[in-house]
Amino acid sequence: MKRREVIKKGLVGAGTVAAATAISAPAMAAERIEITMVSTWPRDFPGLGTGAQRFAQRLSDMTDGRITAKYFAAGERVGAFDVFDEVASGNAQMYHGAEYYFTGKHPGFGYFTSVPFGLTATEMNAWMRFGGGQELWDELSAGFGLKGLMCGNTGVQMGGWFRKEMKTAADFKGLKMRMPGLGGSVLAKMGGSPVSLPGGQIYENLVSGAIDATEWVGPWNDEIMKLYEAAKYYYYPGFHEPGSMLSVQMNKKWWDALSKADQTIIEAAASMENEVMFAEFNAKNGSALERLLNQQGVQLRNFSEDTYDAFGEASEEVFDEVQKHDELAKRIHESFVKSRREIGAWNNISDTAYVAQRNRVLGL
Amino acid sequence: MKRREVIKKGLVGAGTVAAATAISAPAMAAERIEITMVSTWPRDFPGLGTGAQRFAQRLSDMTDGRITAKYFAAGERVGAFDVFDEVASGNAQMYHGAEYYFTGKHPGFGYFTSVPFGLTATEMNAWMRFGGGQELWDELSAGFGLKGLMCGNTGVQMGGWFRKEMKTAADFKGLKMRMPGLGGSVLAKMGGSPVSLPGGQIYENLVSGAIDATEWVGPWNDEIMKLYEAAKYYYYPGFHEPGSMLSVQMNKKWWDALSKADQTIIEAAASMENEVMFAEFNAKNGSALERLLNQQGVQLRNFSEDTYDAFGEASEEVFDEVQKHDELAKRIHESFVKSRREIGAWNNISDTAYVAQRNRVLGL
Repeated sequence: MKRREVIKKGLVGAGTVAAATAISAPAMAAERIEITMVSTWPRDFPGLGTGAQRFAQRLSDMTDGRITAKYFAAGERVGAFDVFDEVASGNAQMYHGAEYYFTGKHPGFGYFTSVPFGLTATEMNAWMRFGGGQELWDELSAGFGLKGLMCGNTGVQMGGWFRKEMKTAADFKGLKMRMPGLGGSVLAKMGGSPVSLPGGQIYENLVSGAIDATEWVGPWNDEIMKLYEAAKYYYYPGFHEPGSMLSVQMNKKWWDALSKADQTIIEAAASMENEVMFAEFNAKNGSALERLLNQQGVQLRNFSEDTYDAFGEASEEVFDEVQKHDELAKRIHESFVKSRREIGAWNNISDTAYVAQRNRVLGL
Repeated sequence: MKRREVIKKGLVGAGTVAAATAISAPAMAAERIEITMVSTWPRDFPGLGTGAQRFAQRLSDMTDGRITAKYFAAGERVGAFDVFDEVASGNAQMYHGAEYYFTGKHPGFGYFTSVPFGLTATEMNAWMRFGGGQELWDELSAGFGLKGLMCGNTGVQMGGWFRKEMKTAADFKGLKMRMPGLGGSVLAKMGGSPVSLPGGQIYENLVSGAIDATEWVGPWNDEIMKLYEAAKYYYYPGFHEPGSMLSVQMNKKWWDALSKADQTIIEAAASMENEVMFAEFNAKNGSALERLLNQQGVQLRNFSEDTYDAFGEASEEVFDEVQKHDELAKRIHESFVKSRREIGAWNNISDTAYVAQRNRVLGL
């Protein structure tokens, strides 16, 4: 679509157009709102893309079409990594994506997707809503003219697919592995060579031996990519993305001009997707894992304690660098660490202890 | 309020009153909806009550007051355990509560709060949304004229407060412990004496020695009750309520008559509360646990493997009895077991494995 048409169709700027059928009753929210929503995901990409599309549809369903979000998948309007600028500039009103794609803007954004040795999805929700996370994200985002809401989570990601067994931390020396973000920085500190590849090129590079290993997401998404054909050893638990939160970021001026009611509608829709997407990953990872193990001959392996110790040490070095960026990065890190300590200790004796005992007794 | 006044004020029956300011535009949902919402919780009860009240308020916030829910805490309109009949009869439109209070109507309702050796909150969300749980709950509820939505979760509850150490399963023989529901049935099979007491009477009974032990919820709620003054040994993990889902149940005829948009608004508001309440419990349990251990001298203990094996055996016996009730109870149990197996196995290698390794490395 050309810029002229976009302007003509009222998709630009405030994005709020008084409805022709506006009514006088003050209690009725009557403004029609047309949203241009861009995304970092390919169209219909399972989990991430379908979740973003479901969120967009829900806004319309909740308002009988009074609010509509015209959804553009990655590349349909702007490229995946251009969504930040597109929304910050007010050229679109919303994007759905992952904040860690924008650590080049500020390294603090990484904390609002997932960081190595970071929070699980449930811990992230607790930090964001009751531990000061949302307020810090608001402060960070406002500096770029944005306002963000949680809108999905992949849950714990797998450690990755390896062509050989990884018995100790030393096995990572010289390993060419596809791993983006801070996880890749950790890998480099352990002597590995992190490689950045878009999803569509992973399979061929793993088959050809151009890379030795790759991480992707988890059983549901990985099964679709047929990564088991190229590497049989499937390692857990992943240290690099223990609960990747997805986000909807909005142009802040546009958001601030919305009525309180419309803001609350968007908040509830985003919150619902935050939970539904995570539930979908958990449900579909469970059944996909059974198929991978029983039908595809995948060898499930866990990282040794020695390997995890090395992941942990290297992660601390990466965090030290992030905190040096500025005072806000330091405050975000410290808030994250406080919640990780408090909620992590509670997790020890709640979910983690319970599932370990239950599954031991039931043989799961 | 007298029944006559209730009828006069339009709080009865369908509960939907066309607004005086209704507009002609078909795209605008213009009906005013006044909801009478009853609850099983005392007013302002932390977590459960405050969450239910927050959900009621959100319906109004999302619609600028077009939908309002007049909230009655337990005893303010009907007693806590009368809410089911109040809504089934159409005398109120909604209740917020816990389904396991109504296992006397059908034992299947227990699965839609929590059962011994059951699902954690995240597993419950996955089962309900993508494993067939919601459909089975709908079938069960429809038989009583109700339609339910998930609307909150306490997360894993603690094993309880004990006046002496509980080293083996044999220590439960003769133990007088406050534990309601199927958890109490399990306790009885282990030779204990389950006692049912409302929250307000637990403290005095524990201090006087009339009971030897009690479970309540978790650190946040338990700290408020000052249970640490009466019993020092605080056991984890609880086997009896590993993720208690709260619900909003609606009169089905009333629900069916709502527009699709209004149904979706209620769904999103309930879903948001489902996540927010769980996040609140996790965040506040974390900091309360630190205070209990460091300031109140609470002794944290974990149940032995032998004890957990006995919990598991007794739980299976209880499940056998539940399934004999009827064909629907059997189908609910089988669906629950399938999701527990699939998602539980995934949990083994995702959240549980990750948190164990992370917390070990970080010393959390």
